[in-house]
Amino acid sequence: MPLVRPDELERAAEEALRSAGATDEEARIVAAHLVTANLAGHDSHGVLRLPQYLAGIEAGSIACGAEIETVRETPTSAVLDANWGFGQVAALRATEMAIAKAGEHAIAAVALRRSNHVGRLGEYVELTAARGMIGMCFVNGHGGAHNTVPWGGADRRLCSNPLAFGFPTGDGPVVLDMSTSAVAEGKVRTYRIAGKPVPDGWIVDSEGRPTNDPEVLYSQPRGALLPMGGNLGYKGFGLSLLVEAMAGGLSGAGTSGPDPERGGNAMCIIAIDPERFVGKERFMAEMDSLVEWVKSSRPAPGFDEVLVPGEVERREWQRRTREGIPVDDETWRQILGAAGSTG
Amino acid sequence: MPLVRPDELERAAEEALRSAGATDEEARIVAAHLVTANLAGHDSHGVLRLPQYLAGIEAGSIACGAEIETVRETPTSAVLDANWGFGQVAALRATEMAIAKAGEHAIAAVALRRSNHVGRLGEYVELTAARGMIGMCFVNGHGGAHNTVPWGGADRRLCSNPLAFGFPTGDGPVVLDMSTSAVAEGKVRTYRIAGKPVPDGWIVDSEGRPTNDPEVLYSQPRGALLPMGGNLGYKGFGLSLLVEAMAGGLSGAGTSGPDPERGGNAMCIIAIDPERFVGKERFMAEMDSLVEWVKSSRPAPGFDEVLVPGEVERREWQRRTREGIPVDDETWRQILGAAGSTG
Repeated sequence: MPLVRPDELERAAEEALRSAGATDEEARIVAAHLVTANLAGHDSHGVLRLPQYLAGIEAGSIACGAEIETVRETPTSAVLDANWGFGQVAALRATEMAIAKAGEHAIAAVALRRSNHVGRLGEYVELTAARGMIGMCFVNGHGGAHNTVPWGGADRRLCSNPLAFGFPTGDGPVVLDMSTSAVAEGKVRTYRIAGKPVPDGWIVDSEGRPTNDPEVLYSQPRGALLPMGGNLGYKGFGLSLLVEAMAGGLSGAGTSGPDPERGGNAMCIIAIDPERFVGKERFMAEMDSLVEWVKSSRPAPGFDEVLVPGEVERREWQRRTREGIPVDDETWRQILGAAGSTG
Repeated sequence: MPLVRPDELERAAEEALRSAGATDEEARIVAAHLVTANLAGHDSHGVLRLPQYLAGIEAGSIACGAEIETVRETPTSAVLDANWGFGQVAALRATEMAIAKAGEHAIAAVALRRSNHVGRLGEYVELTAARGMIGMCFVNGHGGAHNTVPWGGADRRLCSNPLAFGFPTGDGPVVLDMSTSAVAEGKVRTYRIAGKPVPDGWIVDSEGRPTNDPEVLYSQPRGALLPMGGNLGYKGFGLSLLVEAMAGGLSGAGTSGPDPERGGNAMCIIAIDPERFVGKERFMAEMDSLVEWVKSSRPAPGFDEVLVPGEVERREWQRRTREGIPVDDETWRQILGAAGSTG
């Protein structure tokens, strides 16, 4: 697989987006977001998505130059309507609004509806952390994209419904970006491609019976993902409902239901400024000592050390910045083709 | 086990607390909280705790009549110091402040430090839900009470670090009150008493090796709880760190570390008023349709129906209101004895 320099990859992605009709700002934001996801090692949210976005523009499901409307606003809250523009652009706007409002009023929440794929959630809580704030981000499938059973159920009723949070430390942010289903569907696909059984507690067949066979997600009648938590999956199910309430409920996008409007993402982001609680400096010192304390544990068998969420990504970032980003031939060819079509 | 009428149990608990030195308000709040936990079926947070609280008063670790100080306040935030009074009283105050502030400003967060045991977290987010709001509640062990390994670690570094959230529906609130460790320690104890192995993914021995033997938590060198998530326990670990940041970080109580001040709880509660986003009515209708949708799933083998979080508790509430609350002889004898000592 070719290793591509991050700046080269970003330039090509930006060119491809601009050629397809994205505004300069959209192309810049989306390209930077995708390459950042690759740098963090989250290739499923990286430039792999670009061909799909370009097809979305072509098909009219992604509206280039869409206005992000502020439907309702208070000093500590807002509801935004992305008018089906690029998700990353709208989610970034929502995040910046939440940060600005929290900086003035201790805490703020901004909800977003009618948005396309917002990409890697970690990005948004990394931004809040970079301003010394705690961030929490909730995203649903805009009412659709059902792939997960409720706890105790046999039918697809929920989306993977991810949530993310982050807070700052002196060594960079602690960031967790997680699905409330056991895993994202793409993870099961990698097991299927490798011809390997998936671990316990991830999936059920079409009758709701636990299985390790990834094939059940891809043959009719289809199986589904389980909520996160293994034998305590009611916790993941509950968190998934919280995500629905926060992302789909507060934004007006709607929650999972029998008749979703169309595919997309709805989101809500909360920013909290420790400055108004105990002061940023004291908060940060506390987070540093917390990380030091948990990392001081002896490793368990099979582990070399205790890693806090975000640490693996930071190491991958350093490595890929140095060595380049692996991009499969076909994707790289498509990006270069799309970028080159402007000449 | 005797079945005691809820009002009788509450009166006796209130009397016992008052006799021990609690103010009228403290006795009323704590007794109501404990009996409410019993009614919901969460006996581990019910009147079983009362003898321990009475001993705490005796020993001076619970300060009756303690002033709850507002250390810092903005229109959307506050930091409270409970001065080591009753946790339920201080947590209720924090919750009421958060609700009042969110009602005026869409969202608010109140953090609490130097508090004794705050009891069942579900109670606080039921209150936010009763006002038509989303509530999120985070509680740590005030820096101590370590019983859980970090993901990939072999040493106790974290408390069970619970979180709870709730939102309103027409049929009563959806409420999840969960530990970010696989389970609370008390759950392992019930397996030990029953002489049964615990399910996979709950505990490790003193070397960090997975085990099903509950005995490892009670013999030297001690084992520990695993973070919630089974083979995806990094998610529970991450959520546990979020709880530390929210509860211990924002309040100034401190996070888990080598040298905790003393046992106790620190908390942070967020209240969000949908009125300022899409309006309470629209939000509530959306939550109703979400619950209807997830419950419309066929049950999985071994389940009779899909239950949303809070539904089991509501049913138990109805049953125990009708039939009475089971209280073990010894606890009931102690409560009556303590209540009677005023004459």
